[in-house]
This record gives sequence, C-alpha cells and structure tokens, in this order.
Amino acid sequence: MSAAELPLLDALPPIGFAARPQAVRDRLGGRTLIVSTPSNIRWLTGFGGSLGWVVIGPDVFTLVTDGRYAARSAADLAASGVDADVATARTRPELRNLVVELAAGAGAAAVAEAGHLTHAAWTDFANDLALEPDEATITSLRRVKDEGELARIESAAAIADRALADVAPTLGGGLTEADVRDELEHRMRRLGADGPSYPTIVASGPDHAARPHHETSRRRIVEGDTVIIDVGSLVDGYHSDMTRSFVIGDQTPLQREIYELVLASQLAGLDAVGPGLPARELDAACRQPFVDAGYGDWYLHGTGHGVGLDIHEDPFAASVSTAELVVGDVVTVEPGLYRGGFGGFRIEDLVTVTPTGCRRFTHLSKDAPCLPSPPTT
Amino acid sequence: MSAAELPLLDALPPIGFAARPQAVRDRLGGRTLIVSTPSNIRWLTGFGGSLGWVVIGPDVFTLVTDGRYAARSAADLAASGVDADVATARTRPELRNLVVELAAGAGAAAVAEAGHLTHAAWTDFANDLALEPDEATITSLRRVKDEGELARIESAAAIADRALADVAPTLGGGLTEADVRDELEHRMRRLGADGPSYPTIVASGPDHAARPHHETSRRRIVEGDTVIIDVGSLVDGYHSDMTRSFVIGDQTPLQREIYELVLASQLAGLDAVGPGLPARELDAACRQPFVDAGYGDWYLHGTGHGVGLDIHEDPFAASVSTAELVVGDVVTVEPGLYRGGFGGFRIEDLVTVTPTGCRRFTHLSKDAPCLPSPPTT
Repeated sequence: MSAAELPLLDALPPIGFAARPQAVRDRLGGRTLIVSTPSNIRWLTGFGGSLGWVVIGPDVFTLVTDGRYAARSAADLAASGVDADVATARTRPELRNLVVELAAGAGAAAVAEAGHLTHAAWTDFANDLALEPDEATITSLRRVKDEGELARIESAAAIADRALADVAPTLGGGLTEADVRDELEHRMRRLGADGPSYPTIVASGPDHAARPHHETSRRRIVEGDTVIIDVGSLVDGYHSDMTRSFVIGDQTPLQREIYELVLASQLAGLDAVGPGLPARELDAACRQPFVDAGYGDWYLHGTGHGVGLDIHEDPFAASVSTAELVVGDVVTVEPGLYRGGFGGFRIEDLVTVTPTGCRRFTHLSKDAPCLPSPPTT
Repeated sequence: MSAAELPLLDALPPIGFAARPQAVRDRLGGRTLIVSTPSNIRWLTGFGGSLGWVVIGPDVFTLVTDGRYAARSAADLAASGVDADVATARTRPELRNLVVELAAGAGAAAVAEAGHLTHAAWTDFANDLALEPDEATITSLRRVKDEGELARIESAAAIADRALADVAPTLGGGLTEADVRDELEHRMRRLGADGPSYPTIVASGPDHAARPHHETSRRRIVEGDTVIIDVGSLVDGYHSDMTRSFVIGDQTPLQREIYELVLASQLAGLDAVGPGLPARELDAACRQPFVDAGYGDWYLHGTGHGVGLDIHEDPFAASVSTAELVVGDVVTVEPGLYRGGFGGFRIEDLVTVTPTGCRRFTHLSKDAPCLPSPPTT
C-alpha cells in the first residue's frame, strides 16, 4: 500500500455520540450509573482525560473531573457534541463528594462499575450510597462499533500494515528486537498514528519467540530464527492489533510444518467468524487443528478478543467464553504455537463481524514467512 | 551531557530483591497477602508480565500466572534470584481458584490489595475466603528505593535530559507538537531507554499550554508561544519524570513575570525537600509564592508525586496529603501556572530524599526559556 492509499485521517466520518446517552438510560431502566472506566467515559462523552467520573440517570448527565482537565473537558465535549454538564473540583476528596452528591441527588437507585472500581473506592462510596454492581451496561453497548469507529480502527490497521510491510524486509539485516520495535513505532507515527496501540512485541529465536507475551529485548535477530511481530497503532483513541511471523533464511521442515499449521488454523478461525457464533467455538475452530496434529500443548492462550477504545475488550474468545459474536463486533483471530528451543509463530488478523461473516482490517500477506538473512561476508 | 557520559545500562548495580519477602512477612505479622498490583508483583519477585498474582505468608510464597507467561516468569525469577514457587493455569477461572487455594491453604488470615483489586474480583474471592483490606504493605515498603533502583531512575532521567537538550533548540523551527514528541521518544530509545515512561506531553500556545495534562496534538508551534514539555524515559521498569518550559522568540513582560514566578516556586520546593517534611508542606512551599503574587487560581494541580516502578506512586504532595517524606523517597517537584489565552509554564525536577535534603536526577537548565523562532522569509 502506498502512502497515497492510506485513509485520510482528517476526513474520518464522525463518531455517533448523539444516541449514546439515551441508549445508556434505556438500559439503566430508571437507575443512576456512576461511570469510572476511562474508556467508557470516552465512549459516552468524548472526554479523553485519564481522571474523571460520569454520573448518568433519568435527570442527570454530568462529567466530573479535576482542575487539570477543566479546559480539555470543555473542548472534548464541544468536539463530540455531547450535551453533558461539567463539574470540576481541586482535590480527590472533593471529587469523590461531588460524585456522591450527584448520584444521591438523582433520587434513583445507584449502580457503579464493579469490574473497574477498586474495592477500596467502592467501600468508600458505599458509606454514603446504596450501591449495586452495574451489569456491564456501557461495556456491552460498546461492542457494536459505528461507522466512525470502524473507520478509525481501519485507519489504525492500515498504518500498522504499511509500517510492517516496510520494516519486515529488513529483519534479517542484523537488527535487534528493539531496533525493529523502534523503527515500527516511529514509522507508525510518521504515517499519522497517535502512537502504538500497545508495546510492540518483537520476539525472536528459540526462547523469545516461544513466549506469547515476550517483552522486546536487545537480542540480535539471526539466521534460522522464528520471529513474531505483534504491532498495532492508535488513531483518535481507537486501537488496531495484528501479528505476523517470519523465518530468517530458509525454513527447516519443522518450521514449515508449524507455520502451515498455524496459518490453516487462523484461516479456519476467519472462516468461522459470523454473527451468532459462540466465542468459544471461534476458539475451538482454531484450537482443533492443533489438537488433531498433536500440537495442542503448544497453544498457550485464547484465540481472540475485542478491540476498540481498549486494546482488550469484550468479547473474549477462549475455551471458557460465554459470549456470542454480533454484527459490529471488532475481534482478533490470533492462534499461535510456541515451544522453548523451537521458538514460535502467531498469525493475527483484526476483523469486524458483518451480516454474512466478517470484513478484515489487516491485509499484510501471510503466505511467505521467509526473509533473506544477511549475505555471508 | 555527551553520550559518553550517559550511565552504562549494562553496568547498573543489582536491585535488592533478596530482603523483600522477609520484609513483607514482617509487616504482615502472620497473615497471608494476595498481591494483585503488577508493580508490587514486580517489586517483590522481578516478574514483569501484565497478568499475575502472588500469595505470600508465613509458609507460602508463590507466583501464579497463565500459560503465556510460563517461560518468562521462570526467567524473571532466575534473573532476580527470588526463591518463589511458580504455579500456572490456562484459564482465568483456574487462575482464580489457584489463588484461593494457596491463600486458604496457608491457614492464616488473608488480606488483599483493596486499592487495586476491583470490587467484582474482591466479591468473587470473598465467596471463598475471609478477606480483609491490606494496609498498603508493599506500597509503603516500595517508597524507599535501594541503590539499584536509584541507579535505574538516574539513568532514565539522564536519557530524557539528553533527548530534550538535543531537541529543545529545534522547537521554533516550524515543528508540530507531535513532531517534537516523536523525536523525543525516538531519541530516548536510541539512547537506551525501553520507551517513554508516559505519553510525552508537548503543549504549546495560548490554549494547549494552559492545560496541565494536554494530549499532544498536530498543532504547529509558532513565535510567541509558551511551550511545556513533560518527558521521561523507562529503564528496566523504572520511570523518570521532568518538565521544562519555553518561549518561542522574545518573552513578553507577562511571560517573563510568570516564568520567574514558577522558577522561584520550584526552587523553593526543592529547598524544602528533606526527611520529615510533611508532603503537604512541600505543596505549600510551592503554592504560597503564587498566592502571594496574586496568581493562586492559576495553579491547577498538586505539587508532586512519588516515582518508581509506577510513574505516579506514594507519596503524593498536595494540600490534602498526610504523608511525610523519608530518606529514599523519589519525588517530583513540579509547580506550574496556567491560563487560557496566555498558555502556561511548568518546571519539574525529579529528586531523591537524602539525610540532608535531596539529590536531583534531572539536570537540564531551567534558566533560559527563550528559544529562537524561525527566521522571517
């Protein structure tokens, strides 16, 4: 993809903030919700600061934040067009009291995000409020992405595609894992990303590539290595996620066998994705080929997760998942095989669920993992 | 500082892991602690993965994590020399059950980190365990940094010093805020940092620099702007934190007055730092000069915070703080003044508390904020 084909970040369609407050109120059925999860606050109001609260109920919709964010919260709300009140306080105790007053004053039963709020904060609120756990009201609404959200995720994925397409051919040139990470992240920013969407993973060789969540190191990549690169970018708060795997130099027969097995598993997963699919069946679709081939114990993680304002969000696709995929979900499909002494391969695409299956956001080739190693001198 | 003067990252003194398990047990007085905070787990064991638990008590010291981290947890424990058991599980329910079994099997009263654990997770554990809130056992032990920790923070600060020293002279050359951020972060990595220690803030001009926690944008920096740059690097898990402020071109009289006021406040804060100082008096030492000069309502935040394995950790220095500084604390001193239409200035140093006062880690000059603007063409 040439730079000219990259989506124009200035021309992204707007995000559909307007309908969200009412959608939340409809789910709450007369109760008042204290929102503390930053990504839920951003989804509901557009406010992107790291400290804030929203209280929303039949007669209240207020963003509470501290003085550091007074100007930014006003600007963010103006940009999103969300008609919420703003209240600010200078200290944390004052902030806490504002939230309690708003929730108590609403005169309705109060719920809060028990999956985010710490037990200490919950206990503190419970001194002054009869608080019940919220049943994932905003988390579940957030699963279905609108046109503006999908466009941001698509742009983020296109930027990572392009950066990895440019950097991958250099992998065998004597670089360290950290060199590759630094170059990928720098290029994504030059292409318009706000940053990497998570710490880029560059895992190489018999030990590092055998760790699904390796921390990129200063190891030098050498001939014969398997290399796993897990990279995404961030555009206007939305994340992308992609993994490609490589071999430096010629493949061994075992490398070829494992790579082809991972690719077949990943294609089976993509093929399975569609509305109504239980997420644990997506996991099974990728896991079964490994089990059948006798490599079941080389598969060390679940098969996928939702992506949006958070890099890991609902739905999760693992053997214990209870969710079903719906149209508008954005999920990863990312099987992999790992073994100390061998290394590993993972292949991951990011897709959105459509009425007939899925649409892929990550387009970098998965067919030819072998990269040239440096010429012998 | 030339590259040759940068601390050698390969020659950093070791971190004192050996004494920590016993120090925690001494504080627990026979109880068993479930540790869930990732930075507390790293401090106690050296394990740097993002998902894990530690159960520690009179007869138990076990790191529990999932299959993705099996190889890494073993390698991290070997590197730190910590003699903990490791238990892994494949799914989150299995992980949860392992933790419950270890804590229940220890046969002692169990406490958990109520300031980190979500209310939902706490409630789930409480079904099977009589759980009490832990009184910040590890958080308080972590305040006092050892020689190995101080060396890492000093290295991280030196890298950010050097990067900003190189980049600051280019600020007036027609760059955007994002250009400056990208260049700073790329340079810190080339200098040996594992990454930025938080998203670098480059806030310029009458609106952006008026926001203490501005999100770096694509605004172009122009003559007359105030510019705030808040930048730190990450070395082996340890953070640095520094802010410098600039004017592009000649200062206006008001810019000169406000800059000198912020600098005087910051120097007063540094002067106050020492063992036994109540943190709220550090805040007052910086705040009072602003109030005296009639700019009290331009100061929108607290004066400082601890820095270590987290970028924000105990002790916090605000008007409501109850902590007292102790030898070995690493804290920021970062007063600033902000006003929409004017912009703002913040000056921040990172110091460690010594028996006689403090030692500074950030050395970049604070005396000459004015930078050349681009030549008129």
